[in-house]
Amino acid sequence: MEFQFLGTSAGTPTRARNVTGLALRAPGGKAWYLVDCGEATQHRILRTGFSLMTLGAVFITHIHGDHCYGLPGLLASAGMLNRSAPLLIVAPPSVRRFVQAVCETSELTLPYPLEFIDVEEAMDIDRLPDVGVRATALSHRVPTFAYSFTEKQIERRLDIDKLRRDGIASGPGWGRLQAGEDIVLADGTPVRSADYLRQPRAARKIIVAGDNDTPSLLAAQAQDADVLIHEATYTQAILEKIGPGPQHSSAKMVAAFAREVKLPNLVLTHFSPRYHDLGEIEEEARGEYEGRLFLARDLQRYALERQGELALVPD
Amino acid sequence: MEFQFLGTSAGTPTRARNVTGLALRAPGGKAWYLVDCGEATQHRILRTGFSLMTLGAVFITHIHGDHCYGLPGLLASAGMLNRSAPLLIVAPPSVRRFVQAVCETSELTLPYPLEFIDVEEAMDIDRLPDVGVRATALSHRVPTFAYSFTEKQIERRLDIDKLRRDGIASGPGWGRLQAGEDIVLADGTPVRSADYLRQPRAARKIIVAGDNDTPSLLAAQAQDADVLIHEATYTQAILEKIGPGPQHSSAKMVAAFAREVKLPNLVLTHFSPRYHDLGEIEEEARGEYEGRLFLARDLQRYALERQGELALVPD
Repeated sequence: MEFQFLGTSAGTPTRARNVTGLALRAPGGKAWYLVDCGEATQHRILRTGFSLMTLGAVFITHIHGDHCYGLPGLLASAGMLNRSAPLLIVAPPSVRRFVQAVCETSELTLPYPLEFIDVEEAMDIDRLPDVGVRATALSHRVPTFAYSFTEKQIERRLDIDKLRRDGIASGPGWGRLQAGEDIVLADGTPVRSADYLRQPRAARKIIVAGDNDTPSLLAAQAQDADVLIHEATYTQAILEKIGPGPQHSSAKMVAAFAREVKLPNLVLTHFSPRYHDLGEIEEEARGEYEGRLFLARDLQRYALERQGELALVPD
Repeated sequence: MEFQFLGTSAGTPTRARNVTGLALRAPGGKAWYLVDCGEATQHRILRTGFSLMTLGAVFITHIHGDHCYGLPGLLASAGMLNRSAPLLIVAPPSVRRFVQAVCETSELTLPYPLEFIDVEEAMDIDRLPDVGVRATALSHRVPTFAYSFTEKQIERRLDIDKLRRDGIASGPGWGRLQAGEDIVLADGTPVRSADYLRQPRAARKIIVAGDNDTPSLLAAQAQDADVLIHEATYTQAILEKIGPGPQHSSAKMVAAFAREVKLPNLVLTHFSPRYHDLGEIEEEARGEYEGRLFLARDLQRYALERQGELALVPD
C-alpha cells in the first residue's frame, strides 16, 4: 500500500506546505483514493503520478475549509477532463451541502455523477474493490472522522514444504491449489486447496485521522493497524498556551497514544504554520514513542510493505 | 501603477500556470487590489510582496470557478491572520451568494466584515482613495465585467520657468503653491497657485477584463487607457475548431481590437492549458498589433510609468 502527502499544513498554507490532502493506493488497485481536499489539492496532484480520471473515491474527515475547499475546483477540473465515471464522496453531510451549494451558486454542472455517502450513517464502507474502509468518530469542533483502510486482496501462499512432503509434484496443479481450487492427482487422490495454503499474512491497515484532540478514540482501530497518520498541530507547550478551544492534538499526546497501543508506524502531519522547522515537534514525539516515527512533508511518498514496515519512497 | 499576475491559465491550473488572479497597486497606495481569485490565489500571494492584511478590495469579473473558487480560502486565511479591517468585494451578485453559501455550509465565521457591491447595480466605484474604478459589461456565458482602474492622485507640477520669469523667488512659498495654496509675497503681492501649476499629466488607466468574446465592448473604455489586460484563451484556428460555445477570444481578435483603438500596451493572459509554449499565441497577436505586447506569466510584475510606458519589473 502506498500513500502520498498532498498537504501537511494546518489552517492556512505556507510556502512549503499546503493544507490537508492525502492520496492512497492499495496494491494492484486501478483506482486511488483521496482523503481530504484542502484548497490547491488539485495543484498538488499535478505534481504526482495520480490522475483525476482514476480517482476512485474521496473521503473528507470534516467540513473545515482547510480540509475541503479544494473539492469544488478538483471536481470542476475532472469535468473539464471529460471524466464520465461516477465519483463517490464519503463525508459528513455538511460536505454534501457545501458541494451542492457551490455547484448551485457558481453554475457548475459536472458531466459525471457524484454519489455521497453520509459517514455519520454508514461507518463501514464496503464498496471498493481493493480496500475496506471503517470510519471512527473523533473529537473536534465539528463532526470529524478517521478513516481506516484495510487491504482486501491478500495473496494466497502455498505450503511448498508440505506439498513436497506429501509427494505432490510441482506443475499446473500447484497454481490451481494456490488459486483456491481443489484438484485430483493422476492416481485419483483428491487434494484440497485449503490443506496446502499457508496461514495468510495479516491484511495491511492504515488509519488516516482528521483533526482530533482525543487520540484514544482510535484505540480499538489501532489494535491491528500498521500505520496511524494523525495531526500534531502543536507541541505540548504551545497547545497549553493556546488552550483547548481549537481541539487539536500535540505531538506528545499522539506519540504517547501510539506507544500505549504499541503502534509500529506513526506519521505526524497537519502542522501549525508557526513551525518552519519541525525539529521541536519531532523531538517531542521521539521522547514518547520508540516505534518508526515520520514527520510528513508535502509530496513525500510512503510504501507500507507486506510485512508491515513503512518506508519513504525515494524521489 | 503596478500589477502582478497570480495566475494566467484558463479553466484548470497547469504545473506552470495557476487559474486567474491579478494584484494591482496604485502609486503611494497603502492598500492593494485583487482582481479575480481562482483557487490557490492565496498560495500565489505567499510568493509576492502582497499581504492579506493590506488587501483593500477584491473585484471579481464573473462567477466561473476558475475566477472565484479561491475566495473562501483567502477570506478564511485573512481571518486566521486576525484581520479586522472590513473587506470590500465588488462582483456580480452570484459571487455574494456563493461566498455566503460557502460560509454557511462550512461553518466559516470571519472576524472582519465583508461588504459586497453588486457591480450590475453600481458600475462606477468611487470608494477607494487612490483609484477610481469603472465596470464594463462583457460578453460571456454568465454576466461578466471588465474593471478599469484610473489613478486618482496626480502629482502637481510647478511651472518653474514662469515663476522665475515673474520674479517669484524659490523658497517655502513654492512648496505651498505646488500644494495648491495661494500665497502673498513679502511685498504684499498675492500669488494664485492655479496660475503657476502646469497642466497635469493624464491619469494612468489600466483595464482588467474578464472572459469575453467581444473585445469591441471595451472600445469606449480603451480610448484613454494605457493598458488592456485581456484573455486570449486560444489561437484563432483553435477557437474556430472549438466553436463559439465557450465565448472566449482568440489572440487575433484581441490584438486586432487593440490595433483599431490604438492601444499602446496590450497584455494577453488566460491561456488554455493546451498551450505549454505561448509562441503560437504571441506570433498571432504580433501579426495584428504593433504596440507593446506582453504575454503574461505567473508572478510576473509590471510597472506602468507616469508617461504611460509599460515594462516588466525584473525579479
